[in-house]
Amino acid sequence: MSTIVSVDTRDIRFPTSLSLDGSDAMNPDPDYSAAYLVIRTDAADGLAGHAFVFTIGRGNDVQVAALETLRGHLVGRDVEELLADMGAASRLLTHDSQLRWLGPEKGVMHMAIGAAVNALWDLRAKRAGQPLWAHLSQLAPEELVSLVDFRYLSDALTPAEALAILRAAEPGRAARHAELLELGFPAYTTTPGWLGYSDEKLDRLCREAVADGFPQIKLKVGADLEADRRRLAIARRAVGDDFPIAIDANQRWDVADAIAWVNALSEFRPAWIEEPTSPDDILGHAAIARGVAPVRVATGEHVQNRIVFKQLLQAGGMQVMQIDATRVGGVNENIANLLLAAKFGVPVCPHAGGVGLCEAVQHLSMFDFVAVSGSMDGRMIEYVDHLHEHFVSPTLVARGRYLAPTAPGAGTEMHASSIEEFAWRGVHAGAGA
Amino acid sequence: MSTIVSVDTRDIRFPTSLSLDGSDAMNPDPDYSAAYLVIRTDAADGLAGHAFVFTIGRGNDVQVAALETLRGHLVGRDVEELLADMGAASRLLTHDSQLRWLGPEKGVMHMAIGAAVNALWDLRAKRAGQPLWAHLSQLAPEELVSLVDFRYLSDALTPAEALAILRAAEPGRAARHAELLELGFPAYTTTPGWLGYSDEKLDRLCREAVADGFPQIKLKVGADLEADRRRLAIARRAVGDDFPIAIDANQRWDVADAIAWVNALSEFRPAWIEEPTSPDDILGHAAIARGVAPVRVATGEHVQNRIVFKQLLQAGGMQVMQIDATRVGGVNENIANLLLAAKFGVPVCPHAGGVGLCEAVQHLSMFDFVAVSGSMDGRMIEYVDHLHEHFVSPTLVARGRYLAPTAPGAGTEMHASSIEEFAWRGVHAGAGA
Repeated sequence: MSTIVSVDTRDIRFPTSLSLDGSDAMNPDPDYSAAYLVIRTDAADGLAGHAFVFTIGRGNDVQVAALETLRGHLVGRDVEELLADMGAASRLLTHDSQLRWLGPEKGVMHMAIGAAVNALWDLRAKRAGQPLWAHLSQLAPEELVSLVDFRYLSDALTPAEALAILRAAEPGRAARHAELLELGFPAYTTTPGWLGYSDEKLDRLCREAVADGFPQIKLKVGADLEADRRRLAIARRAVGDDFPIAIDANQRWDVADAIAWVNALSEFRPAWIEEPTSPDDILGHAAIARGVAPVRVATGEHVQNRIVFKQLLQAGGMQVMQIDATRVGGVNENIANLLLAAKFGVPVCPHAGGVGLCEAVQHLSMFDFVAVSGSMDGRMIEYVDHLHEHFVSPTLVARGRYLAPTAPGAGTEMHASSIEEFAWRGVHAGAGA
Repeated sequence: MSTIVSVDTRDIRFPTSLSLDGSDAMNPDPDYSAAYLVIRTDAADGLAGHAFVFTIGRGNDVQVAALETLRGHLVGRDVEELLADMGAASRLLTHDSQLRWLGPEKGVMHMAIGAAVNALWDLRAKRAGQPLWAHLSQLAPEELVSLVDFRYLSDALTPAEALAILRAAEPGRAARHAELLELGFPAYTTTPGWLGYSDEKLDRLCREAVADGFPQIKLKVGADLEADRRRLAIARRAVGDDFPIAIDANQRWDVADAIAWVNALSEFRPAWIEEPTSPDDILGHAAIARGVAPVRVATGEHVQNRIVFKQLLQAGGMQVMQIDATRVGGVNENIANLLLAAKFGVPVCPHAGGVGLCEAVQHLSMFDFVAVSGSMDGRMIEYVDHLHEHFVSPTLVARGRYLAPTAPGAGTEMHASSIEEFAWRGVHAGAGA
């Protein structure tokens, strides 16, 4: 038996605004940051659970403050008991009635709970000696169902339906596990498409993306229609007629604007339009989806919880689900999201980039492939080549595919040296004292 | 010319869990709390802007941390310039692209921004020597429109439509202002209906509510159907056949459960069912509204922003809008909500209670009456007789009506002595050291 002895938090910020990496129509100068959490135990194995919430700079301290409030729920707990019933562990945090008032199940407090849940999963997978994706993929369908909070879902997905989805995928698990280890999982790249880049850099990065074997690229749009048309023309020339180019407006538009703008780009045949409007606007997404068809609507990186994902699916407002590893209530709520997507037949193409999002979310897509949807068709994980060097088990992408991680854990542990170097002291590392 | 010189924050918590005041199906033991903010200037008038976010205990420190992040946007600013364009002031805070990532426009960060906006309004009304409701009610329709962020609203409400609503209400402003001063605004009381109270206390408080002149009472439901039927029977006997009794489930149910439960209570003719399910579930509210008609669905105290209110109206999921003074982005976003309600012809009956919510939200209902909807029909403000003594200008309710406040400001300033006494020190005031 072992006990949780500490919950340590850190405010970590990378000065990415200095290079305009990550610039888009709504986020002109992000400083990729992590509100970081380590759960330590008194076990002899010395293993700790690491996780974080990704933010883009200011307010990372608020996110850290939210992580701090969870210490009282965790320190002193029996580790084996907690890890043996991760559904209960998740509910313990999500259903704190006082903390719930701060959401409910959304924003700063919900993301903090998600990080704590993810840290427990990192610890559990490390103890099992398995990468998280493989660990999740060999759980019994009944245990997987027990991880999901079905509250507010039963009009779209019942526990019995979830169980049926998971059981249907059970026979092929071993073959798909082997396929993942051999071939990896498709990636697409957003690296060419940031708004802050010059036309020449855009052209060069598009050609490099194709040469590198990526099956899709993505361009940021929404700041200036003529510039979008120019940049899409450059990209289309660079990648050729049949290569998928997704576009991403980062919530820039109202409904009518979205429809008009996307239709004004239709000659470039976008693979999807991502975040055309507010992530809260379910009915707006549905109206946009009708107005821009056959272009598909993709969203999810800012979708606050399973309840909004449920409605986006019910309303026909989302043809591609883009889960994020640190936006919702952790692995558990993302399993709910994967099951909802499977129920509605919508592919999951996770949001990644930032810091550590690639490392974290690849486990969820690989689990989806092995044990939920059972398919790679139309599925791919976003990839941006930023800041991977700060992770103990960095994402490996080759020939346009994520290689399946083999190191135990959830991929969310940073190097101690990176944590020290980029710990926020009120001024950016490298910007002078 | 004057300048903002400080933004002070405090973590204030009242030990209400000790008496079970405020207990309901989702919140068994709330400690009514305020993350409190004071904006001070170097002006000779010595006036300061006070506001707060209401929470129910744990996590109030996270909310204070969020208030702290706004200091950099406020300290050093020209006060007159800021107060002269409150639309710009609100956008300055809401559109900080890095802080926006923590929502967007929801949860801890959005509520903090709302408190800062409200503190500026408190200061502006104090400088004008007017209670906030009267101050807002004499603004030109054009200025009121300039306060609203129409982003994500234009498919339901355009600036031109908002202007038309406000202009239509302009001729009757003076008469309604006088009517308010003479008669006040209807209140309903939730005091009888907390789940923690005995049947005898319920019966007595119901009779007292009628005797006190309240036009409606509200009972908490949703924990136990048989107990709800017993309590509603007691209440119905106590208040008589024709007296309105609203019921409130505090988000307890999934869609099918909500419909079945409310229909099982239909013989008691509830005036509305409040928060039947997740505040995020727009389509769920719409299904419930169809399933329980003619009982109306009321919601809003946990609705995160104008975008969700817009959809609840579009989908027919909400027949009574219950705005909250400290949940959304402050007075500005609540003006958007009032305009949306007016556009869709839905009455606004604000959520109140907690600590300071009655003091704050009465100004919005009174402004709604004078300058937006122009009507008291079906409108009333929730009233709970808790903790008013801690405010410099406490709510005055008599004969079931809120008396129109006459003191300058937004009603949100607490006594310095209360702030000191209930400042959180890790243990409740009065609970021993």
